[in-house]
Amino acid sequence: MLKITIWNEFLHERQNPVVTAIYPDGIHKALEKNLGPYFAPQEATFTTATLDQPEHGLSEERLANTEVLLWWGHLAHDQVSDAIVERVQQRVLNGMGLIVLHSGHASKIFRRLMGTGCMLRWREAAELERLWVVKPGHPITDGLAADYFEIPAAEMYGEHFDIPDPDELIFISWFQGGEVFRSGCTFHRGKGKIFYFRPGHETYPIYHQREVLLVLANAIRWAKPCGSNYTHDARHVPQPLNPWN
Amino acid sequence: MLKITIWNEFLHERQNPVVTAIYPDGIHKALEKNLGPYFAPQEATFTTATLDQPEHGLSEERLANTEVLLWWGHLAHDQVSDAIVERVQQRVLNGMGLIVLHSGHASKIFRRLMGTGCMLRWREAAELERLWVVKPGHPITDGLAADYFEIPAAEMYGEHFDIPDPDELIFISWFQGGEVFRSGCTFHRGKGKIFYFRPGHETYPIYHQREVLLVLANAIRWAKPCGSNYTHDARHVPQPLNPWN
Amino acid sequence: MLKITIWNEFLHERQNPVVTAIYPDGIHKALEKNLGPYFAPQEATFTTATLDQPEHGLSEERLANTEVLLWWGHLAHDQVSDAIVERVQQRVLNGMGLIVLHSGHASKIFRRLMGTGCMLRWREAAELERLWVVKPGHPITDGLAADYFEIPAAEMYGEHFDIPDPDELIFISWFQGGEVFRSGCTFHRGKGKIFYFRPGHETYPIYHQREVLLVLANAIRWAKPCGSNYTHDARHVPQPLNPWN
Amino acid sequence: MLKITIWNEFLHERQNPVVTAIYPDGIHKALEKNLGPYFAPQEATFTTATLDQPEHGLSEERLANTEVLLWWGHLAHDQVSDAIVERVQQRVLNGMGLIVLHSGHASKIFRRLMGTGCMLRWREAAELERLWVVKPGHPITDGLAADYFEIPAAEMYGEHFDIPDPDELIFISWFQGGEVFRSGCTFHRGKGKIFYFRPGHETYPIYHQREVLLVLANAIRWAKPCGSNYTHDARHVPQPLNPWN
Repeated sequence: MLKITIWNEFLHERQNPVVTAIYPDGIHKALEKNLGPYFAPQEATFTTATLDQPEHGLSEERLANTEVLLWWGHLAHDQVSDAIVERVQQRVLNGMGLIVLHSGHASKIFRRLMGTGCMLRWREAAELERLWVVKPGHPITDGLAADYFEIPAAEMYGEHFDIPDPDELIFISWFQGGEVFRSGCTFHRGKGKIFYFRPGHETYPIYHQREVLLVLANAIRWAKPCGSNYTHDARHVPQPLNPWN
Repeated sequence: MLKITIWNEFLHERQNPVVTAIYPDGIHKALEKNLGPYFAPQEATFTTATLDQPEHGLSEERLANTEVLLWWGHLAHDQVSDAIVERVQQRVLNGMGLIVLHSGHASKIFRRLMGTGCMLRWREAAELERLWVVKPGHPITDGLAADYFEIPAAEMYGEHFDIPDPDELIFISWFQGGEVFRSGCTFHRGKGKIFYFRPGHETYPIYHQREVLLVLANAIRWAKPCGSNYTHDARHVPQPLNPWN
Repeated sequence: MLKITIWNEFLHERQNPVVTAIYPDGIHKALEKNLGPYFAPQEATFTTATLDQPEHGLSEERLANTEVLLWWGHLAHDQVSDAIVERVQQRVLNGMGLIVLHSGHASKIFRRLMGTGCMLRWREAAELERLWVVKPGHPITDGLAADYFEIPAAEMYGEHFDIPDPDELIFISWFQGGEVFRSGCTFHRGKGKIFYFRPGHETYPIYHQREVLLVLANAIRWAKPCGSNYTHDARHVPQPLNPWN
Repeated sequence: MLKITIWNEFLHERQNPVVTAIYPDGIHKALEKNLGPYFAPQEATFTTATLDQPEHGLSEERLANTEVLLWWGHLAHDQVSDAIVERVQQRVLNGMGLIVLHSGHASKIFRRLMGTGCMLRWREAAELERLWVVKPGHPITDGLAADYFEIPAAEMYGEHFDIPDPDELIFISWFQGGEVFRSGCTFHRGKGKIFYFRPGHETYPIYHQREVLLVLANAIRWAKPCGSNYTHDARHVPQPLNPWN
């Protein structure tokens, strides 16, 4: 069973009635409920965690039992404790998958893993977004019916998006108002896989949309830990190999 | 069931008693037999094809029923018909996985997909090869016990290996005699995934070695077709979207 | 002096009065004339070559004296001889820079170097194109005044563009009609640098536009041959190094 | 004139007579002196800075007047102030080139820009290192006479090197004792170019070796600031473009 934790700062939903109407129990609970049907029985198990919990809900034990972590934050990036950010980073380097959602681009954990500012242009004008698939054979696009899908009303994010070149660029968004954006990007840090996915503004029902959920379910499977049994220790290896004797 | 075809030129094994002793039924049959145990029952089905068969065993129907193709060739690259190479290329662009083995670096199909000469240095001196994992979280390395594995006697391949920069570099080989080599490389062409894997010289029992088989089984799973339902047609799209009306 | 050759099939300009009006002496001559001022005196020397010349103007001697080749073609890709394509490919692998313009995406030389179909969506609707800079520290963007520039009337090219993942993605185009496109891409093949640049449809005066010329001049400088004195020969190296004795 | 600053912690040279003998005035002064002849008159100007200076010699003014910064540290990474590290990072994001030398892999600035641990295996056994060129057309390799060069006695660094996949892999080292290492790697962060170069252990005269100096001079030229006039601000852009009216 793939162990998934959905982290949410859970503030907008308790402050803004527009958001409450869309996500009455919070974005984290909506994602948990909506993603469930995209997994087979016994394939995945979900937990949620929020900013206001002790250790933001991300204790050592919780992270040790998380294989893929989803991260949604916006208003309160600065309230996330540096110690927890450090803990999440180490867990990623040791193999945990991390899916950074929408305004999570400016979260401490994403910026720390990227090494850059991760800023961008933005505008809230309920405009049309078209996400074009630029890597159509990638597992994260599995099952999408066509070469793009649309979000009818979205916040705009535009380039330049100040990230390192992604390891793989999966989606590029077109916005009605004249901008483009690298909306689906993969990165690898240590043994961990990271997927940044742009859609998800709190005032639009984006996490109720089928294509968005399909992409997230694909990304969760893609990000699950795997690989060699290597661990990230620095190692002094005093003896050279002498294959000639 | 994942449909796998193993292609082999099948010449060395019928010409050189040293090779016959290691691969009495051919490299293709040895791979088929040795890879089987790395898959669950009902997970995969294997077929083989060889140069001397009609259409080199790669009819339209056979390719349509192949999800991952393994390719071993050395002496007779030039005898592979251009029409079949074209057919394999189109099948890769439309999603079939391709695993190119050892001396397949100089095959028509690999050179055509790469666009470069794909040549390298080489030496046959039965020397020690160590394959270092440089991407330890990659699914192709899944289950390897340590950060390297060794092949006790190998033909040397050395840089410069004239390929495009790989999309992912998984293994780098160290050779006793002073060379290094990018031994495990992934590429994407169209919707197809390609893995080049260096080990496999015909005069050493390399396709009987556990780590080599584990990597190949991982690579086969990694290379299976997936992704969006996009097909590679050129498309004239006369009508622009006018989202403002 | 950097030696630049501009190749053009030179057909539209002699067949279509709209094109003749914009490029009376051909796209090649317009580029030669318009790019000149972007180089210092004694920095660069230009020559042109066209399809109807012997060997398409690309003799062994001409190519040996070309450090960067620009390529514009559209109607007559199939009329370019395979032998000349092979010659250009080998020259690229040995270090010559290649700049592929607009409809050159479907040229034999580009498809051969990419290994893919290189096809895309298209529409002629004289629509607005905005080229966003996604790699703002790259020398090809040197001197651009802002994070995008516009072409007021362009043919649309849209994703999916069937190329290998570019080594560097420099520009993404936004089109009024709803599409995006990876408009400025670098590739390396052998020792040669390749830049694909989308703008340049024959019925619009795009090669008279300042930003387009600036990008091309930057790309020419970026693509000039450099590097180690390595040559692409396959090499049998019989003697191992034994550093232990 | 290209403005270069060479930063060195400058401790080994004052503590260990072996190092003092090789670098009597410090690694920074040796680099300054030895790199000079690789630049034309009026091409470059050098300054040095060390840990023990106020602000480690990296005042706002000094950094504003630095186009490429070289960084050598080993014993005292933790003594570099976080405020200065932050300042250097911001300067890199805004375009300054950064060349990280040898044990600088574990420096605060490199780890912060990479987002990973940046650790590796190591051994001091004065063994032979061969640096193989794997990207022979790259400007950083310009002028190297062959496809590899050797350092007769080196500290070993081995994989796995815990860095993000480099944007470009230029050199792979072979070590006598059985390891390989990605010894020359480029990265881009913001508008800044970064080159990590492995050679340079303090107890061997590596920064007196011709090939090493040639590579560093090439890397300095490659890393100089360039590109569009974009600056890394987050930008709220309230007005969409409406190209249809």
